[in-house]
Amino acid sequence: MPSDPPKPPDHMTPEEFRRNGHAMIDWVVNYLETADEFPVFSQVEPGEISALLPDNAPDDGEPFESLFADLNDVVMPGITHWQSPNWFAYFPANTSPPSILAEIASAGLGVQGMLWSTSPAATEIESKVLDWLVDMMALPQSWKSTRSGGGVIQMSASDSTHAVLVVARHKNKDRGHAENMVVYASTQAHSSIVKGCVVAGIGHVREIDVDTEWAMRPDALRNAIAADLDAGLLPVAVVSAIGTTGTTAVDPVAQISDIAEEFGLWHHVDAAYAGAAMVCEEFRHHINGIDRVDSYTFNPHKWMMVNFDCNILWVADRAPLIETLSILPPYLRNKATESGAVIDYRDWHVPLGRRFRALKLWWVIRSYGVSGIQAMVRSHVGLAELLADRIEEDDRFDLFAPHPFGLVCFTHRGGNDATSALAEALNNSGKVAVTPSILDGTTFIRVVVGQTRTTSHHVDALWNLIDDLAPTVPR
Amino acid sequence: MPSDPPKPPDHMTPEEFRRNGHAMIDWVVNYLETADEFPVFSQVEPGEISALLPDNAPDDGEPFESLFADLNDVVMPGITHWQSPNWFAYFPANTSPPSILAEIASAGLGVQGMLWSTSPAATEIESKVLDWLVDMMALPQSWKSTRSGGGVIQMSASDSTHAVLVVARHKNKDRGHAENMVVYASTQAHSSIVKGCVVAGIGHVREIDVDTEWAMRPDALRNAIAADLDAGLLPVAVVSAIGTTGTTAVDPVAQISDIAEEFGLWHHVDAAYAGAAMVCEEFRHHINGIDRVDSYTFNPHKWMMVNFDCNILWVADRAPLIETLSILPPYLRNKATESGAVIDYRDWHVPLGRRFRALKLWWVIRSYGVSGIQAMVRSHVGLAELLADRIEEDDRFDLFAPHPFGLVCFTHRGGNDATSALAEALNNSGKVAVTPSILDGTTFIRVVVGQTRTTSHHVDALWNLIDDLAPTVPR
Repeated sequence: MPSDPPKPPDHMTPEEFRRNGHAMIDWVVNYLETADEFPVFSQVEPGEISALLPDNAPDDGEPFESLFADLNDVVMPGITHWQSPNWFAYFPANTSPPSILAEIASAGLGVQGMLWSTSPAATEIESKVLDWLVDMMALPQSWKSTRSGGGVIQMSASDSTHAVLVVARHKNKDRGHAENMVVYASTQAHSSIVKGCVVAGIGHVREIDVDTEWAMRPDALRNAIAADLDAGLLPVAVVSAIGTTGTTAVDPVAQISDIAEEFGLWHHVDAAYAGAAMVCEEFRHHINGIDRVDSYTFNPHKWMMVNFDCNILWVADRAPLIETLSILPPYLRNKATESGAVIDYRDWHVPLGRRFRALKLWWVIRSYGVSGIQAMVRSHVGLAELLADRIEEDDRFDLFAPHPFGLVCFTHRGGNDATSALAEALNNSGKVAVTPSILDGTTFIRVVVGQTRTTSHHVDALWNLIDDLAPTVPR
Repeated sequence: MPSDPPKPPDHMTPEEFRRNGHAMIDWVVNYLETADEFPVFSQVEPGEISALLPDNAPDDGEPFESLFADLNDVVMPGITHWQSPNWFAYFPANTSPPSILAEIASAGLGVQGMLWSTSPAATEIESKVLDWLVDMMALPQSWKSTRSGGGVIQMSASDSTHAVLVVARHKNKDRGHAENMVVYASTQAHSSIVKGCVVAGIGHVREIDVDTEWAMRPDALRNAIAADLDAGLLPVAVVSAIGTTGTTAVDPVAQISDIAEEFGLWHHVDAAYAGAAMVCEEFRHHINGIDRVDSYTFNPHKWMMVNFDCNILWVADRAPLIETLSILPPYLRNKATESGAVIDYRDWHVPLGRRFRALKLWWVIRSYGVSGIQAMVRSHVGLAELLADRIEEDDRFDLFAPHPFGLVCFTHRGGNDATSALAEALNNSGKVAVTPSILDGTTFIRVVVGQTRTTSHHVDALWNLIDDLAPTVPR
């Protein structure tokens, strides 16, 4: 019997791991308590962090103390603080203690849930919790995994939207070339729809006109489809938005469903941000007609206190999704799969491997309960309404769009340059983060209230800062 | 001024979060110390975990103690223990303490690194560490982000392979329909190549014959391309494997590069598992000719002690990747991006959002050093060689294929049924996990040595179990 090969380094003993882990937890707890003390946007210049790193990996291992020190010295200056309660930019990526604790358990278990059999708990908890959410949000019962549909956790809404565009293309593959297929969405649709079509090889994306509230005009959709049919093109899908990225506009889902059914289009709904609001009954009028759509995506990692990444895709009928994406090589064959009694989520998306992400979603829902999540949404929307009221009452500003959820869009009456300068002054202050944007030639400022720890104190401070900086901008 | 909206629940105080976090760490440390005590494959039946969960989300929040109790009572019975040192199935998804600690920091920071500006440290550490790996593995210098190429972390090799297939399709879009395009890979290629083509809408995948060592035959590749050209089809890409999933066969990269260059094909290399071995000089002959390929993917989350997910895609020239995948809507515009001085990784893959995954890769490399990672690879390969020697010397078994890395494939001389029965007996014992597979009508058992904590003790125990169970199988 030959001798043992060289042993791998036993770098960290269990006792050291425990001690370092406790230190890491203390660091995270402290960070979240003090996140409001950092400039919200990182202040570094391009290349500044890179210059702090050596050009080569070390030959020998370094002690954890060195890594930990660099977390403060190298990493933190280059962090943009999405977890600051002064985060009002983009959409939030909010989180919570139970979500972070679940991430630790998931990292420790280190399971790869590609198949039911490679960790049944990862699959079954995912299906069950996504079924819970169907009830929590009054979504169609048919979307449950116990019925014809089902939900799956993916990394991002871009992935989910891309996946269903591939399904729509696949369903129509005998009717024409992908280059001749057309997908419809409003001028306000998220970039992931154009990107999803580019990636899927779908030739045309029609950006449909919107009404005065930035919502898709069904008449314009119908006209566009008719024109494309006349031109010999092949309409395959339409994407409605519940809460566009620009202004959280809401497309008329029921009317778009009528048109989708008439022309045989796959109807996908992108509720990436605003979907979370459907835990509250008072927002559900925005999804009237949802029982007739084919797929729907929303991100618990945006506004439901679940760490990024956690996107959900629901389909009303799982068959075409699985039919498009299922490939079964011999090394993945197993009895459970062959019995048909289980879900193998690898057939529900592009990647094969998958983390145990359902754990954090399950823990967040259980920790806060439905009532706790409702309270969070109502708090943020209420704070956004207070801010909107102040903006509306102030003759230096105009609201730019309705604010059905937690996003408030406004302009400085001094014009585009003044609005841009105000956004820049706000961000350069380091005290808050907002997002400047532009629609139809008008520059406006997006302020979204959605970070877990944001309270009236932070929104008041934001308003005071706007109030202070507004007179300083060139106009 | 109206009154404050309802506050969200302050579910966990900082002190509680700290205490629960310490308990969670202790649980993970204990789990990893005792992972060998669990049956490796979960023993539950379909639906068993689901039945333990209520059908509805709770209205009110539950204490962390309930979640924690269910981690043991509900989750653990449904876990398949990828972190058991007795894990010899599929390919590993190994991990390490510094990787887990980095996941905690990443979850706590909760940054979404879609743009350089949304956390410069996430982008710059990623670029720098992937450049380190180029040197660590003697990959082409041109792949560095400081040169023409660059690396990007994605979720899985499936995602990376899909992305480059989309680039290959996009480059050829003016030459014909995607339905007429052809991608080549060996009969042994991973299912992600077929799936990537299906998802990308590429019409044809040719499975090229292999030699007696399961490596792609260049003459067969050339013949297939010629036949497709004669038939009016459009060859666009070839995928070589360094370490196939079935047997870790190695395709002749240099010869395939010759053919790829001759016919203008994109040449992608899938080294998902075996790529990690390139930290050791003695394995690098397997990637001779790598300086002429267009893209290369490998998974630090398989065999480099970095938690799933952490896949790397390198491209020799980043321009066509970014040209294909870049979409810039107004709400993502910012000065840093417009300066061209920074990388925005959202343009390097399908999803927009991304976690700070570079942190764990950086911490693992620094914690173990190049020498520590080399020692791990050499230990696993050495243990696999010892096992292969025993199998070869035993007249009840045959080695089924060469074992250039940590995977040993063997058959029971009693035939397919005996081999299947032995695999089933091994897995049913609960003491180990192996993967039965089938190639060209022959059933064989895949045993991969690659879990971080696997030592000669565990491989000895596996051998003893094989030795004990072999006589019991029907033949």
